[in-house]
Amino acid sequence: MYTELCKKLDIDVPIFAFTHCRDVVVEVSKAGGIGVFGAAFVNSLEELKEELDWIDAHIGDHIYGFDIVIPNNAVGQGSGMSAAEQENKLWEMIPQEHTDFTNKMIDEHGVPQWHDDSRPPMGAWTMEQVMPMLEDALKRPKCKVIVNALGTPPDHVTKMVQDSGRLIGALTGTKKHAKAHKEAGLDFIVANGSEGGGHCGEIGSIVCWPELVDAVAPMPVIAAGGIGNGRQMLAAMGMGAAGVWTGSLWLTVEEAHAQMAQKESYLKAESTDAVTTKSWTGKNCRLLRNDWSEAWKDPANPDPLPFPLQLLLTSDLRRRSAMYASAGDTQKIADNGCGQVIGQINEIESCRGVVSRLIGEYVDALEALNGLMPE
Amino acid sequence: MYTELCKKLDIDVPIFAFTHCRDVVVEVSKAGGIGVFGAAFVNSLEELKEELDWIDAHIGDHIYGFDIVIPNNAVGQGSGMSAAEQENKLWEMIPQEHTDFTNKMIDEHGVPQWHDDSRPPMGAWTMEQVMPMLEDALKRPKCKVIVNALGTPPDHVTKMVQDSGRLIGALTGTKKHAKAHKEAGLDFIVANGSEGGGHCGEIGSIVCWPELVDAVAPMPVIAAGGIGNGRQMLAAMGMGAAGVWTGSLWLTVEEAHAQMAQKESYLKAESTDAVTTKSWTGKNCRLLRNDWSEAWKDPANPDPLPFPLQLLLTSDLRRRSAMYASAGDTQKIADNGCGQVIGQINEIESCRGVVSRLIGEYVDALEALNGLMPE
Repeated sequence: MYTELCKKLDIDVPIFAFTHCRDVVVEVSKAGGIGVFGAAFVNSLEELKEELDWIDAHIGDHIYGFDIVIPNNAVGQGSGMSAAEQENKLWEMIPQEHTDFTNKMIDEHGVPQWHDDSRPPMGAWTMEQVMPMLEDALKRPKCKVIVNALGTPPDHVTKMVQDSGRLIGALTGTKKHAKAHKEAGLDFIVANGSEGGGHCGEIGSIVCWPELVDAVAPMPVIAAGGIGNGRQMLAAMGMGAAGVWTGSLWLTVEEAHAQMAQKESYLKAESTDAVTTKSWTGKNCRLLRNDWSEAWKDPANPDPLPFPLQLLLTSDLRRRSAMYASAGDTQKIADNGCGQVIGQINEIESCRGVVSRLIGEYVDALEALNGLMPE
Repeated sequence: MYTELCKKLDIDVPIFAFTHCRDVVVEVSKAGGIGVFGAAFVNSLEELKEELDWIDAHIGDHIYGFDIVIPNNAVGQGSGMSAAEQENKLWEMIPQEHTDFTNKMIDEHGVPQWHDDSRPPMGAWTMEQVMPMLEDALKRPKCKVIVNALGTPPDHVTKMVQDSGRLIGALTGTKKHAKAHKEAGLDFIVANGSEGGGHCGEIGSIVCWPELVDAVAPMPVIAAGGIGNGRQMLAAMGMGAAGVWTGSLWLTVEEAHAQMAQKESYLKAESTDAVTTKSWTGKNCRLLRNDWSEAWKDPANPDPLPFPLQLLLTSDLRRRSAMYASAGDTQKIADNGCGQVIGQINEIESCRGVVSRLIGEYVDALEALNGLMPE
């Protein structure tokens, strides 16, 4: 499973671990894969620096990646407004009906109040928020890969990253966007099948991956959406992927910082529980079905707002449900993003254990395939 | 790729070709796979006998399969009504509003009238219609495999098939139903990922296949939903499938009886064009997006009726759009079922050509995988 991309990045196995948890980044990279730190919900440059300083200090000689939402045509972009001014404008656009409904749901489920009066942070979703973070990441020698989670990055960003000697890639689930990524000169794409957690498209991985591999060849394609064991990794590599991008696998590991109540929601979930909903961000996003996702489908309740307004609307619930995961009925309205592969994840493992399990299963599956061939 | 199932059935490669076309059944079986004749839209025992007689006469020493909808708890079952009485009752349940809307759509798209006044046939969807057909199939020595397209077959059917020395299997997209199939003593299951054409579930193949393989092991699992090339076949087999079940692959082959206008709709389609809709049968079914599928999503129009009423409602359009595929705007409201893999199918091949392409691509992909391993 040692591909050209492994060689280029000097990693042992092409397992990309997308995570919001710095410990997971470090442990996966030390186990021979590459941890990719997702910064979409990092709330300030200071917070980011703290996270990346910690990673730099603990990761040894290994490398890591940085995943961010670099908007190509985001709300407010080019308006001359600061990040804070944009955020104020967005808050003003949220209807009272939506705020009331959200607060009613939160109250009914007994989620404790936030400990102070601070406005919930939006995360890093606008150019003004993201660019200083990216510039910080590019100063760090061990941060070797940049990934854009939503769309083709603007040319000046691609140039900045590549001029610094790093690779830049972006996610997509369609051939059209994959070709746009290639034309923009990116170094790789992450082909995201509909099974995946978070924002996802409609084409299933078994169709999406080889379609995108063929559409952008010889550009490397990393397969995302449905990788939970080494057999699935083998399937991806057998269809021409240069590596695998995994997310759900790391939600329940020992090293993940999530509260036990949230980990338990994941551990007991079936594949059929990971559903798509617009109720968290305004875009189709795959998460565990619960009271929250279902309530927003009921015609009697308000419709989800367009992105990024729904993201703002849910920001208070997001921080409270993460902090008070085991209080009251919090899990019934918690933001538990994951892919359909969550149904396979039924016990707590270590990051190192997951990486070595994937390698072992991959090798066994390849042996089994070879065993089916005539002598 | 020679599995135990190949040995049991004495076929060269575990490629199951689901098709409504007898020529495809014969050609795939003669090429080393196994053609499976889908009878859901066969309208009478006489019509079925004609098809199977032809297959028996042309297939040589090869075997074939028979796929049918054996309902476990269908509308009207056990009521003591005949198939014709049941059908009359069902027709009475269709609201005038739905009939009017359907006729308006058909008129607007210039689909020619059917050549006589006959009521459109329902196809073989009730126990009373299906059982005589199954009994006929079981008299034919070359028909060696029976597959139920919708649910676990009743015990007496399973016993009847197995007592005759044949294998019986059934489709499903969920672990729960797969376990029910196993408990009912079936010989294999067909694991149907959400990418697949026709009635499909919500779990993508990359998650569905290994989940179902593990759930029913050591029972053989045939992978369906997204197989269009040998790399996808390798992926399925690498995850533990005993074979692959293919449908979209055979819609456009030389030997398929469909009119050229319909084949052209398939050849030019992208993977994103194969969408799910309840507008043809009342159940979620994957077909090419067109005016018909979109119209039934519009809140201004009637909602699709429950299965099997919507199936009846569309039966006239189904026969007319098949017969007059190239007239007027018929393709814009035609019943073009297919999976997401249709985006990969861009030229007309022969059945034999498809089978040998799959084998070649499979072998190449396996070699590439072996090449990624350390010496």
